[in-house]
Amino acid sequence: MQLNDVDIKDTYAEAFGIKVSRLLITAATKKLALVAATEATGYGTSVIGCPAEAGVDGYVSPLETPDGRPGYTIMICNSSKKELDHELLERIGMGILTAPTTAVFNALEDTEEVLKAGFKLKFFGDGYEKEVEVGGRTVHSIPIMSGDFLVEAEFGIKEGVAGGNFFILADSQMNALIAAEAAVDAIHEVPGTITPFPGGIVASGSKVGCNEYNFLNASTNEKMCVSLKDEVVESEVRKDVSGIYEIVIDGIDEESVREAMKQGIKAACTIPGIKEISAGNYGGSLGAYKIDLQDLL
Amino acid sequence: MQLNDVDIKDTYAEAFGIKVSRLLITAATKKLALVAATEATGYGTSVIGCPAEAGVDGYVSPLETPDGRPGYTIMICNSSKKELDHELLERIGMGILTAPTTAVFNALEDTEEVLKAGFKLKFFGDGYEKEVEVGGRTVHSIPIMSGDFLVEAEFGIKEGVAGGNFFILADSQMNALIAAEAAVDAIHEVPGTITPFPGGIVASGSKVGCNEYNFLNASTNEKMCVSLKDEVVESEVRKDVSGIYEIVIDGIDEESVREAMKQGIKAACTIPGIKEISAGNYGGSLGAYKIDLQDLL
Amino acid sequence: MQLNDVDIKDTYAEAFGIKVSRLLITAATKKLALVAATEATGYGTSVIGCPAEAGVDGYVSPLETPDGRPGYTIMICNSSKKELDHELLERIGMGILTAPTTAVFNALEDTEEVLKAGFKLKFFGDGYEKEVEVGGRTVHSIPIMSGDFLVEAEFGIKEGVAGGNFFILADSQMNALIAAEAAVDAIHEVPGTITPFPGGIVASGSKVGCNEYNFLNASTNEKMCVSLKDEVVESEVRKDVSGIYEIVIDGIDEESVREAMKQGIKAACTIPGIKEISAGNYGGSLGAYKIDLQDLL
Amino acid sequence: MQLNDVDIKDTYAEAFGIKVSRLLITAATKKLALVAATEATGYGTSVIGCPAEAGVDGYVSPLETPDGRPGYTIMICNSSKKELDHELLERIGMGILTAPTTAVFNALEDTEEVLKAGFKLKFFGDGYEKEVEVGGRTVHSIPIMSGDFLVEAEFGIKEGVAGGNFFILADSQMNALIAAEAAVDAIHEVPGTITPFPGGIVASGSKVGCNEYNFLNASTNEKMCVSLKDEVVESEVRKDVSGIYEIVIDGIDEESVREAMKQGIKAACTIPGIKEISAGNYGGSLGAYKIDLQDLL
Repeated sequence: MQLNDVDIKDTYAEAFGIKVSRLLITAATKKLALVAATEATGYGTSVIGCPAEAGVDGYVSPLETPDGRPGYTIMICNSSKKELDHELLERIGMGILTAPTTAVFNALEDTEEVLKAGFKLKFFGDGYEKEVEVGGRTVHSIPIMSGDFLVEAEFGIKEGVAGGNFFILADSQMNALIAAEAAVDAIHEVPGTITPFPGGIVASGSKVGCNEYNFLNASTNEKMCVSLKDEVVESEVRKDVSGIYEIVIDGIDEESVREAMKQGIKAACTIPGIKEISAGNYGGSLGAYKIDLQDLL
Repeated sequence: MQLNDVDIKDTYAEAFGIKVSRLLITAATKKLALVAATEATGYGTSVIGCPAEAGVDGYVSPLETPDGRPGYTIMICNSSKKELDHELLERIGMGILTAPTTAVFNALEDTEEVLKAGFKLKFFGDGYEKEVEVGGRTVHSIPIMSGDFLVEAEFGIKEGVAGGNFFILADSQMNALIAAEAAVDAIHEVPGTITPFPGGIVASGSKVGCNEYNFLNASTNEKMCVSLKDEVVESEVRKDVSGIYEIVIDGIDEESVREAMKQGIKAACTIPGIKEISAGNYGGSLGAYKIDLQDLL
Repeated sequence: MQLNDVDIKDTYAEAFGIKVSRLLITAATKKLALVAATEATGYGTSVIGCPAEAGVDGYVSPLETPDGRPGYTIMICNSSKKELDHELLERIGMGILTAPTTAVFNALEDTEEVLKAGFKLKFFGDGYEKEVEVGGRTVHSIPIMSGDFLVEAEFGIKEGVAGGNFFILADSQMNALIAAEAAVDAIHEVPGTITPFPGGIVASGSKVGCNEYNFLNASTNEKMCVSLKDEVVESEVRKDVSGIYEIVIDGIDEESVREAMKQGIKAACTIPGIKEISAGNYGGSLGAYKIDLQDLL
Repeated sequence: MQLNDVDIKDTYAEAFGIKVSRLLITAATKKLALVAATEATGYGTSVIGCPAEAGVDGYVSPLETPDGRPGYTIMICNSSKKELDHELLERIGMGILTAPTTAVFNALEDTEEVLKAGFKLKFFGDGYEKEVEVGGRTVHSIPIMSGDFLVEAEFGIKEGVAGGNFFILADSQMNALIAAEAAVDAIHEVPGTITPFPGGIVASGSKVGCNEYNFLNASTNEKMCVSLKDEVVESEVRKDVSGIYEIVIDGIDEESVREAMKQGIKAACTIPGIKEISAGNYGGSLGAYKIDLQDLL
């Protein structure tokens, strides 16, 4: 199968269940909202080594937020509910409450489960906190040095999907990189999804386990390394490929992840020199979701 | 004492010892270097709730880096050497190695102690890693999907200074905020210092302990809250003040922090409506450093 | 009348007819599209001294453009059709054709009049140009050094509205400035409108004519200058006001400008310290449109 | 000759004399200074079709400006002194005076000639302007709505150099593009130079005259068009090249342009897939300066 002369490999992305929260951060200006969103979602590429997977979902115009100010939705994810509880509390408390002019609203409504990050944070007010209503929502108002910080008491969580992914294989490194940037731009338009890696892009796909050093449980995916294509016998890097980047997607449900993968792949294929779209899986034994590439398109 | 008609309060910032590392991240372009620097230093405002204090120190032009590419120095700090070791490894491994086109060099040379984050990361190469020389430095070259990731074996650490700070008190919230941004711009020019809070600015200064809820060990600094100035009897917010932001600085040594405070205060005082510069301390009993504001100027 | 405790003055903005064109610039990535949009709309604040009024209208996601790439709509305006023809040709030819990976589509369809900027530009191809179809549109494909530049032959123009405006009067300079930024963020969401001044904001409202120097036909609006409020007898700056910024809006029709003014004013009034929203007019004798502030809200 | 395995072609860039001005724009914050610098230098890629060649030279830290605020130097160039006079006046008056919190200083001192843009602008103050001293410089202070705009009376101009250039030929379009971005990052560090095209990069190199249409005096450089390499008999595009971008540099003197070319070429050659660095000339008959590529390195 081909799309814009790009081979769509007959394979699938293997994705996993993960607990997902979704917040709306508003601020006085778009720039200030992004400052908070960036801090709160940093150091959040993969739970392999980070305390959470986190990223900016999308921009919400001031015409659509509870307080009429510009905002960004972000997602914070962890496989453990307990750790997600900790991360939600600390990423809001340390990264958003501390940021100029922000407020935080729940952006995952009607879930069966909630975490009470806002309720816990209100005690920071040392008795001076109170409840106020904003755009039909009851929120805690916590006096801070620069004014009052508003935060909703509860944040919905649900079982989402982590590790949706595809690989972009191109004839050169930077064709692959710009295609990855184009994919991230497109995925940014799909609500309920994030691309948690730096700038949305993974430069270093990994495999489970390690052949040479048994103390490691993840190591470089040598079969997909462009600089090893002549050295590794079982290399899966085509002769005409010199650049590969991966996009990893977390979403609030499988449908969102599928739509993000579809739009991302279509966008990547607008860039010259893209040879193949592939995807990462572990033989289907590890993850709950198998998303077939050709099915998407 | 006054500077540009701004009262410089006769007080001091109380700062603490902290273990500091300093890295240089280079990449193909300035933008790509910043993408990695931002991810690696996110969720790093204060060790009260974050796993590290981290931030971007400054830009390094391609004319001055080992590999002739543009870069940013970042700092990662933690009071515990063991935790710093973990943070350095994970923030490089998850936030920089995963980012397009990056390399990482030690930017704190001639220290007595080092952490071997680069040495540990090389095993990710699963036997395909090798040593190469770049700009006179021996570095590990680790094959990753998109090319080769370069990382120096060892990163110097030293006892630095955390929690250098000053408060900007203004007649309005946004005069204080723009003054804080101006301060951050100026501090960005002082090598060896970071302002780890979101956008470099603290919106929510805190006090040690909590009066109302004994299970909290930090809570809002109600005496400095502008919205409580008529409610809190012992408020230290002047009648003519309606906006307060704090700048917190970590540095590689006291001299750097002092210089950053000096340049930051001078910059803040270029903005109209600034009434007072103050600073946070705990009576001098907690921190190893007392930095007197009037002494600086 | 008040909105969020801000006085909405009983006055109107006086706006003018202007010829308007609207283009969609797409590129490989969102960033690259913005580079071209920024260059092409620079030096375009007011036809008083600039060769055109120009600005970025809004972002268009890759899911909605003819070529599936991210883009920005921009507007270029001039009261003279002949000058607009020149500006359109040169701003596309010098600012977009020269920018990496761009294509340009007409974004003002079904107009009675068109300008043939794309048709004229095709001759730059020196015989190597050809016609291709993209997303159902016939466009000229012009070979350039880095690839092929695509441009639609004709661009619709129509009689639009220039000089929609309002003033934000605040208790401090930076409260006014941040309110102006918030207004610009909100207006950015209203399709068919631009705020052509730097960052969307006017720091220097002017009056028609000059009292002191008869060789000038525009000069500072001394009655609205905050630093002259005690010096100018007829000052219209309230005692409680120390910062004023103006927002100027051009739109494809009166409805768009009205909507932009409404959303901009609402956004400005979310910022603390705003005292009054006013607007600029010339007694109603110069412009074809009178937009009453209180009517909008 | 080779640099990092890249062929440096035995050719030269042919550059021209141009009248150059250089300004320092300061503002309350770095971001605000850049807003003004961007507006004032837009629509300024080439005097072939733009009213000036203009660009941002570099960032100046608040520690080094006359008013202790962050700033950017910009350059505005035109071959005609009269037109430069007009452009300087209008780009300052319409693009900087109108931008929030700015001041403008001369950044080309000790020239034989000056233009009196600041002197002319002061009349906008309608009699309320006055002279003040800032950092040892006498400047006009003009009351505007939001505060006071400061501008130095006179701006030095001198005979500079326009059209310094080099071509980056790569195996793919995006390798060439990222190399061009890297070159622009490096040139940004060379004081007294600008890269006036969009994002600093030229996507569409041109030749003098036109073969097919005699009414055009410039047209696409078909010999350097990658998409025509198989069609144009005399194509100078190597078989292994699929992406070409050009960098054009204006500078205050030949030395600056040479240094910018050198640093730009070195930076471009850090990117993989670059095959050749070449340069544009007209047989040496048109320009006053011939800058040999191999001499630079």
